[in-house]
Amino acid sequence: MSSIFGTLFRISSWGESHGKGIGVVIDGCPPLLPLSEADIQQALDRRRPGQSSITTPRKEKDGVQILSGVFEGETTGTPISMAVFNEDQRSSDYGEMKEKFRPSHADFTYQEKYGIRDYAGGGRSSARETIARVAAGAVAEKILQLSNGVQISAFVRSIHDVDAPADLPFPSRGSVEANPVRCPHPEAAERMIARIKEVRDKGDSVGGVIECRVKGLPVGWGSPVFDRLEADLAKAMLSLPATKGFEVGSGFSGTLLKGSEHNDPFEMQDGVVRTSSNRSGGVQGGISNGEEIVFRVAFKPTATVRKNQKTVSRSGEDTELAAKGRHDPCVVPRAVPIVEAMTALVLVDHAMRHHAQTATFGSFAPEE
Amino acid sequence: MSSIFGTLFRISSWGESHGKGIGVVIDGCPPLLPLSEADIQQALDRRRPGQSSITTPRKEKDGVQILSGVFEGETTGTPISMAVFNEDQRSSDYGEMKEKFRPSHADFTYQEKYGIRDYAGGGRSSARETIARVAAGAVAEKILQLSNGVQISAFVRSIHDVDAPADLPFPSRGSVEANPVRCPHPEAAERMIARIKEVRDKGDSVGGVIECRVKGLPVGWGSPVFDRLEADLAKAMLSLPATKGFEVGSGFSGTLLKGSEHNDPFEMQDGVVRTSSNRSGGVQGGISNGEEIVFRVAFKPTATVRKNQKTVSRSGEDTELAAKGRHDPCVVPRAVPIVEAMTALVLVDHAMRHHAQTATFGSFAPEE
Amino acid sequence: MSSIFGTLFRISSWGESHGKGIGVVIDGCPPLLPLSEADIQQALDRRRPGQSSITTPRKEKDGVQILSGVFEGETTGTPISMAVFNEDQRSSDYGEMKEKFRPSHADFTYQEKYGIRDYAGGGRSSARETIARVAAGAVAEKILQLSNGVQISAFVRSIHDVDAPADLPFPSRGSVEANPVRCPHPEAAERMIARIKEVRDKGDSVGGVIECRVKGLPVGWGSPVFDRLEADLAKAMLSLPATKGFEVGSGFSGTLLKGSEHNDPFEMQDGVVRTSSNRSGGVQGGISNGEEIVFRVAFKPTATVRKNQKTVSRSGEDTELAAKGRHDPCVVPRAVPIVEAMTALVLVDHAMRHHAQTATFGSFAPEE
Amino acid sequence: MSSIFGTLFRISSWGESHGKGIGVVIDGCPPLLPLSEADIQQALDRRRPGQSSITTPRKEKDGVQILSGVFEGETTGTPISMAVFNEDQRSSDYGEMKEKFRPSHADFTYQEKYGIRDYAGGGRSSARETIARVAAGAVAEKILQLSNGVQISAFVRSIHDVDAPADLPFPSRGSVEANPVRCPHPEAAERMIARIKEVRDKGDSVGGVIECRVKGLPVGWGSPVFDRLEADLAKAMLSLPATKGFEVGSGFSGTLLKGSEHNDPFEMQDGVVRTSSNRSGGVQGGISNGEEIVFRVAFKPTATVRKNQKTVSRSGEDTELAAKGRHDPCVVPRAVPIVEAMTALVLVDHAMRHHAQTATFGSFAPEE
Repeated sequence: MSSIFGTLFRISSWGESHGKGIGVVIDGCPPLLPLSEADIQQALDRRRPGQSSITTPRKEKDGVQILSGVFEGETTGTPISMAVFNEDQRSSDYGEMKEKFRPSHADFTYQEKYGIRDYAGGGRSSARETIARVAAGAVAEKILQLSNGVQISAFVRSIHDVDAPADLPFPSRGSVEANPVRCPHPEAAERMIARIKEVRDKGDSVGGVIECRVKGLPVGWGSPVFDRLEADLAKAMLSLPATKGFEVGSGFSGTLLKGSEHNDPFEMQDGVVRTSSNRSGGVQGGISNGEEIVFRVAFKPTATVRKNQKTVSRSGEDTELAAKGRHDPCVVPRAVPIVEAMTALVLVDHAMRHHAQTATFGSFAPEE
Repeated sequence: MSSIFGTLFRISSWGESHGKGIGVVIDGCPPLLPLSEADIQQALDRRRPGQSSITTPRKEKDGVQILSGVFEGETTGTPISMAVFNEDQRSSDYGEMKEKFRPSHADFTYQEKYGIRDYAGGGRSSARETIARVAAGAVAEKILQLSNGVQISAFVRSIHDVDAPADLPFPSRGSVEANPVRCPHPEAAERMIARIKEVRDKGDSVGGVIECRVKGLPVGWGSPVFDRLEADLAKAMLSLPATKGFEVGSGFSGTLLKGSEHNDPFEMQDGVVRTSSNRSGGVQGGISNGEEIVFRVAFKPTATVRKNQKTVSRSGEDTELAAKGRHDPCVVPRAVPIVEAMTALVLVDHAMRHHAQTATFGSFAPEE
Repeated sequence: MSSIFGTLFRISSWGESHGKGIGVVIDGCPPLLPLSEADIQQALDRRRPGQSSITTPRKEKDGVQILSGVFEGETTGTPISMAVFNEDQRSSDYGEMKEKFRPSHADFTYQEKYGIRDYAGGGRSSARETIARVAAGAVAEKILQLSNGVQISAFVRSIHDVDAPADLPFPSRGSVEANPVRCPHPEAAERMIARIKEVRDKGDSVGGVIECRVKGLPVGWGSPVFDRLEADLAKAMLSLPATKGFEVGSGFSGTLLKGSEHNDPFEMQDGVVRTSSNRSGGVQGGISNGEEIVFRVAFKPTATVRKNQKTVSRSGEDTELAAKGRHDPCVVPRAVPIVEAMTALVLVDHAMRHHAQTATFGSFAPEE
Repeated sequence: MSSIFGTLFRISSWGESHGKGIGVVIDGCPPLLPLSEADIQQALDRRRPGQSSITTPRKEKDGVQILSGVFEGETTGTPISMAVFNEDQRSSDYGEMKEKFRPSHADFTYQEKYGIRDYAGGGRSSARETIARVAAGAVAEKILQLSNGVQISAFVRSIHDVDAPADLPFPSRGSVEANPVRCPHPEAAERMIARIKEVRDKGDSVGGVIECRVKGLPVGWGSPVFDRLEADLAKAMLSLPATKGFEVGSGFSGTLLKGSEHNDPFEMQDGVVRTSSNRSGGVQGGISNGEEIVFRVAFKPTATVRKNQKTVSRSGEDTELAAKGRHDPCVVPRAVPIVEAMTALVLVDHAMRHHAQTATFGSFAPEE
């Protein structure tokens, strides 16, 4: 298990789906940041299920408590512990999930790796774990906003084979939150919603692609050769449940261009070095170049479907399994704030690392 | 700068393109591994330029020396230092690269981040830095082969818009090395080579996609929630120069399937739990499931082209730049051993982490 | 702030003296360890104040809750979150501590470093933080006992100028717990208790030395050159509040011997390599040698005294301060289980690291 | 093996006594620091043996080469690789050291831990490894001097039972280097030298205590609760060969004082908060308080003595061993620059961590 993320702004995530709760401890948060439970709660509320007709109707309140690290409304520089305690814990009826491995879930691999698994609601591999990430990400996002004016905006670019247009302007949060599928293009959003309802009614599920854009980043964040900014973003995204791919800037389709078509020419704009295109996606040599960060994340269709599926039992017998109850036919819209949270965590960490190396000791220039 | 990679099998990379050399220190290598310079050299030789008509004709000998950590032909468990010393160092003629930022290179971001850069041959951001990765990866690969019989095989899946067929069998190293483009499908390889020559003759460049397959991995490697196996592979790949995307298993195209189509059914085969398809790409819940690991990496077209390009100078003036000399029109074939090396490094590290957590203390079962 | 400790068995500590509670998250615990709240509580109960006539009469219940990572009585390999929630939180009466820096406390340095501090009860720098360490250490100690039969036994070697005899046998827990000062030598214990009462009655305080002994450790734990076993033990001990020194084996008095007197001769005993003396303290070259680990930790006298002391105020004025209420005249006896906890944490981590490097991949020996 | 040290300013040490060389890679060094091989060489020269009548007469040149990370006389922010190549490598005559474990050396534990050891000259456990530390420390020391004006001064406080007076003023480097034993008190130095010669003539060895003082440190360095400044100093010192103890400020003798005697009263001096005594040794709550850092390190007598000693052979037989040739009768004077180097490494790392947390994002104060 590795449930600690980050180098200087480090989070430690804990909790299981049907256990006592989910929580996170942030180590290394700067002091004097104004912070309240309301700051965290608004982020968690965006992640919650049961908010619209296209998500699971399960209602979860997910009220967060700050347990340490904040004194008289400001962070103290000491660990910030936050928790969401589960209202209803262990249900008694997990007979089938206990004995049968759900296809394309983590049931089998957890059982084999650890020799034991908390099968209730997926235990540690449940998407409820992302509560910890969103809570910590809300702190990171507030830091970025108050200090650098950095804005992070993720949105749904595609659901199944329904795409939003390729060249959307930087979306406002309002335009993303204007519809339940979190696509800022209203017409595409409508078609996405229709597609989700259609597969839901057939007991099936769909995936999609989230695009994330960041503006306001200064030049210089990112630590090559290994901790390139896009490398750490890729890791952050692939650490999310149900993700299968990551691309930055031109991504996979960039392989269809020639070098002379793909390069981003530099030009002076108002005395500042800028690029006139952004196929680099805001990073060059692993370091932010001052342009918009643009990346996309692929989410597979939800593994839990009502259709009957072949599987095996813990005792090694071929069997079948069909999910009961009502499940989320598409997790992509709810993943939007999670992608933003992980992005914020990576950025704050890199800001601190950049500063540590280049600004701690001044310029070493001889005084005149 | 962060030039250390790994948790338990840690490598520390150093060196610049036109400096005294490139090297790497491995910390945490298991003892008693038979190791010689020849083991490293064969891997470096695959990475070298000047090997065929489609790569840069620059000849580099890249002879490796093992400086520590090996005693009488075996590793001792202490740091293994390896270096490739440059035969010709600083050239005097870098006037233009010193003053002008090459588009879509790291020149501008390094200069801004650090306030200084070694402009000779790209300095630290040169692809020569990957010598360090390949040398360390050769050690990791030998560990995996001797202990677990793990086989890693990467190959070129596409160059520009020329694709190999989708469903290739696990390729042998012989079939990959059979042609200079490192595509195990001879007919596709021929078309790829033709495409590279075509763009080369126009002074342009192309990119492509590498696929990497791993077989023989046991169930259980990978450390969720953050250090999922695919998350660490994604980071390793996006830490390579010129990469723009990563996908595992079904990847981005998996978003076009429904859940019932995408899930991998479990079934018993010879008493072992297997999946009858592999859209998961060998990982579930961030942990290897015993199937083949399958992932793909997108490489953008080489940024250095002979065509004239717009750019700016260090002093902030709009200008133009055209690369002189002969440059690699496509780095993708040479990146094949580098992708394998990074894969081996990730896998050895995760093997050690898995073992540490689950096997150090035995079963805790009361003795009978 | 750095509140994460360990490499593979990592703990993340949080909480303030008078906040909502104190807690810890363990990341990397082996699965299948039988674990209950009672296992943790017995360790916390040894640390609690109010247990005897020589400690502070404050009563704290310190009931621990396990919030995650344990399923049906066994650890699952996922993060173990534990918390002790404070029954009474913020008191309103901290006027003087808010404005005046207590001499030889962390008040001034926290205020200067962070620009803010939780002054209630010392906030994060309170000894209550060690609850997190003891809770995590109880898990580590159980792992060592069940797997390797390792026994850790710390005890009070001196209080002020009252010493126990130098050459005590390995003390049983019973002999340590037999008196409130936790010295296994009854006669010395009596004199120590008398000394504590004497200074307490004068409104003053005393410190002392704890010795810790570990037996049953296999040869081979410790990772030179930097993570020598004694180096990590030294760090663990100096990370405890009020500690001023650490020595292993012969320690500072070893500098009074000549080499020929100090060296530990090797000899064969029942087919095993042993040393006939143990001035090394169980470590050679940073690695356990199979003998008893022996080290000592110096604790300064408690800084909080009833006597009037010179100090300055936050606003930069010279002033005076005398502690009110009743304070612990000597924290050394209560630090015994804390020293044991930190020792257990270091040992489990090193066991895992040793195993990872030397046992993950087998012997590499060609099969015959 | 763990040969990487530090969090942000990380060094990776490699090499064996009689191998090809000893080296170090620094990752995370700030850019734009003026740096030349002469900066490193002057530090290495202080560490070298053969400098006086009281050290081993072995002559080692130890010429350092900077292999990367410096461009036109300044650091570039990329890894700095430095190496000292051995002039004479493997000698052929190690028959006895190959077969017999030297008492109180690392021979036995390395052999048991790794199943193999480089027995030539002690291999990795040789004091020659500290070349790597001194080279890296020279860079760290230059950073501290140029930026903060921090001064680090270590010296020999005692040899065997010969002590320098307790209350020495902050010693200048000149006063330390004025005699071969590196004690700034000339009269004590003379007695120390006599003692060393006396034991040398008897084929024996002695140890001693080094005191290290640091002035000019700002308030605020150190990261409680685990990475307290003194905890990381303790680890750094106990990671050195032959060390048995560490104490800061009052240390072990502080346990003989009462709280009212031990506390350091705060007082205002020229508008700055100072303490009128310094039993804290410059740290409170794990954070530097602006006073002089004062700590002491105990070094045991050199294990290699000409006298005959009992030991066992690799094959498990009782035997005897007497060192041949001429060995250092006392390593303490030569350890002075090593203690300074490790101190500088810890301080630079903590400066960067402090800055990252408290200065990266400004004050969060609303603009007016």
